Amino acid sequence: MTAAAAVGLGIRFRVLAAAADDSAAQVCADAPVGDYRSAADLLAFAGGSDVVTFDHEHVPPHALRELEEAGFAVAPPRAALRFTQDKLLMRERLSRLGVPCPPFRPVASMADFEAFADRSDWPVVLKAVSGGYDGRGVWVCRSYDEAADVLSHGLDLLAEEFVPFERELAVLIARSPSGHGAAYPVVETIQRDGVCHEVLAPAPGLPDHVAEDAIRLGLRLARDLDVIGLLAVELFQTRAGLLVNELAMRPHNSGHWTIEGARTSQFEQHLRAVLDLPLGAPTRTAPYVAMANVLGGADPDLYGKFNHVMAADPALKVHLYGKQVRPGRKVGHVTALGDDMATARLRATRAARYLATGAEEP
Amino acid sequence: MTAAAAVGLGIRFRVLAAAADDSAAQVCADAPVGDYRSAADLLAFAGGSDVVTFDHEHVPPHALRELEEAGFAVAPPRAALRFTQDKLLMRERLSRLGVPCPPFRPVASMADFEAFADRSDWPVVLKAVSGGYDGRGVWVCRSYDEAADVLSHGLDLLAEEFVPFERELAVLIARSPSGHGAAYPVVETIQRDGVCHEVLAPAPGLPDHVAEDAIRLGLRLARDLDVIGLLAVELFQTRAGLLVNELAMRPHNSGHWTIEGARTSQFEQHLRAVLDLPLGAPTRTAPYVAMANVLGGADPDLYGKFNHVMAADPALKVHLYGKQVRPGRKVGHVTALGDDMATARLRATRAARYLATGAEEP
Repeated sequence: MTAAAAVGLGIRFRVLAAAADDSAAQVCADAPVGDYRSAADLLAFAGGSDVVTFDHEHVPPHALRELEEAGFAVAPPRAALRFTQDKLLMRERLSRLGVPCPPFRPVASMADFEAFADRSDWPVVLKAVSGGYDGRGVWVCRSYDEAADVLSHGLDLLAEEFVPFERELAVLIARSPSGHGAAYPVVETIQRDGVCHEVLAPAPGLPDHVAEDAIRLGLRLARDLDVIGLLAVELFQTRAGLLVNELAMRPHNSGHWTIEGARTSQFEQHLRAVLDLPLGAPTRTAPYVAMANVLGGADPDLYGKFNHVMAADPALKVHLYGKQVRPGRKVGHVTALGDDMATARLRATRAARYLATGAEEP
Repeated sequence: MTAAAAVGLGIRFRVLAAAADDSAAQVCADAPVGDYRSAADLLAFAGGSDVVTFDHEHVPPHALRELEEAGFAVAPPRAALRFTQDKLLMRERLSRLGVPCPPFRPVASMADFEAFADRSDWPVVLKAVSGGYDGRGVWVCRSYDEAADVLSHGLDLLAEEFVPFERELAVLIARSPSGHGAAYPVVETIQRDGVCHEVLAPAPGLPDHVAEDAIRLGLRLARDLDVIGLLAVELFQTRAGLLVNELAMRPHNSGHWTIEGARTSQFEQHLRAVLDLPLGAPTRTAPYVAMANVLGGADPDLYGKFNHVMAADPALKVHLYGKQVRPGRKVGHVTALGDDMATARLRATRAARYLATGAEEP
């Protein structure tokens, strides 16, 4: 999706693909295959570029250092990106900045866990400081046994209080090297089992002063963490106020609605920001925008169903990523714009569910 | 721009590029270089594709025939495309269909021209039946001498009455093989020296019944000429009604405004149509949309100026095509959406002029 935005801006764009049939390689004219964990591959890839940026946070810090030391402009810079790579560092830094977060502590042993759990309500959340196993990095533990099982994998871990939030919000900020910032409207994200299913823009019924708080917080974090490019801040809305859950510094699932729903898409905005071009207007193009993820179901054929979705709702925007369908994998998304949120949401979720499962209703 | 639309739809897209640095080859992952005039190149290129379509009308009929005879789905089909390749055939067919056109006759000699000119008002228009010379195919002749000069180049020619039109309009239709049609709002096109400078959507002040006539005419032509894909009909609005000026069967400059200004862009719509997917909603996304072409000026550097345009108007959408700047060449376009046409038009034209010339005002 960033490649498509580069076309619009007339920017020469190259992507380092993990494999020749990667989603990005399918649509980008210049997509050499290489290993993002290899400094040599990164250095060879980056040659001739004005700036190097990312669509995930898994490039190892040592490789980022080599890129920066070789003189490449890396955006966001390594010093910012590490707050998305190391959740303990992020929590410590945010705490020092006085940003509200769930209570936490690093956990190296069951004794550490017990010391934390004894002072918390259950469940207790364990998070991998970086990475994870079985494709997961967050475990909601309801017993010492569950925690012991997570600890047995030998990861660096962090314990956090489980926050009884009212809902989840996200704020998306763009910041350019010259310090200019732009904020998208605050959205509600609807997650199930740690997977984002829906994004509603703007977050329904959010009081103006809370939206303003969220945007102020996002802009402040982008500045204090020296982010260049996008910063997505995932938030818990609680009775006591907003808490920061996670950070990402790249185009983010909570911003996919901006492709049609904002005057400047997050993908275009990220490119503008990392290239220090003036930022685009983040204003909505319709009163209400609903985005629903297409999560892989049992049926590997999305295209037969795409036809029916197009026919049923000619104004719906469906994006399929050219990924192999696997159960639960994000293989596309659907965006609906409209004059009321209930209708937009119904249109987007029904289409996404139908694409995933072939069923009209669950 | 079609390649970017294919990304959105998740369609595998290949483009036959005239050269490795073609605009399309810069942004398309699969862009073999070949000669669109060579049947062998076309056959090799088309292998494995579900449908072959075009972004210009210059593929020779014999090559189209070979493609069709080899079993490829060609959209629009050769039988339709020839009406954009042979203006005499187009005029004759439209006349038989009872579609209002300027009076015309084929011209093989000065005697033919004189016979026509004697019964017309001056100036008289000469058009190449196909192709042209010096990059032109239309000559507005104000004397016999001027006509003799055009005739001296040995082209097949057509004489037409010069139509004293009030303004130029265009209607853009999509038609799929199953016969479904969709019509975009009728636009006004503002041309100077035969080059489109601006497109205004919808055409300001156009009475509903004239807009309906234009759309009915477009839908009828798409059906009667068996068009598959887009049909752009360029029209003269005169006191006596609408006359057809030109036809194109591809994404058209008069439809570039649809990228941001319509729920479904013309590029996405063309792909949907040629693949017989259900057509998308052609509705506008804003009350008024103005598009201005960036025509190459003396300054080859568009990018230094792009910065200033972005900064001055963050909601403007600028598209640069990655083409070498040559005076008068279309190297990009600018789209502005808004709540009144005068402001949208001012924003688009000022930005386009500034990009082309570096001057705020001419």
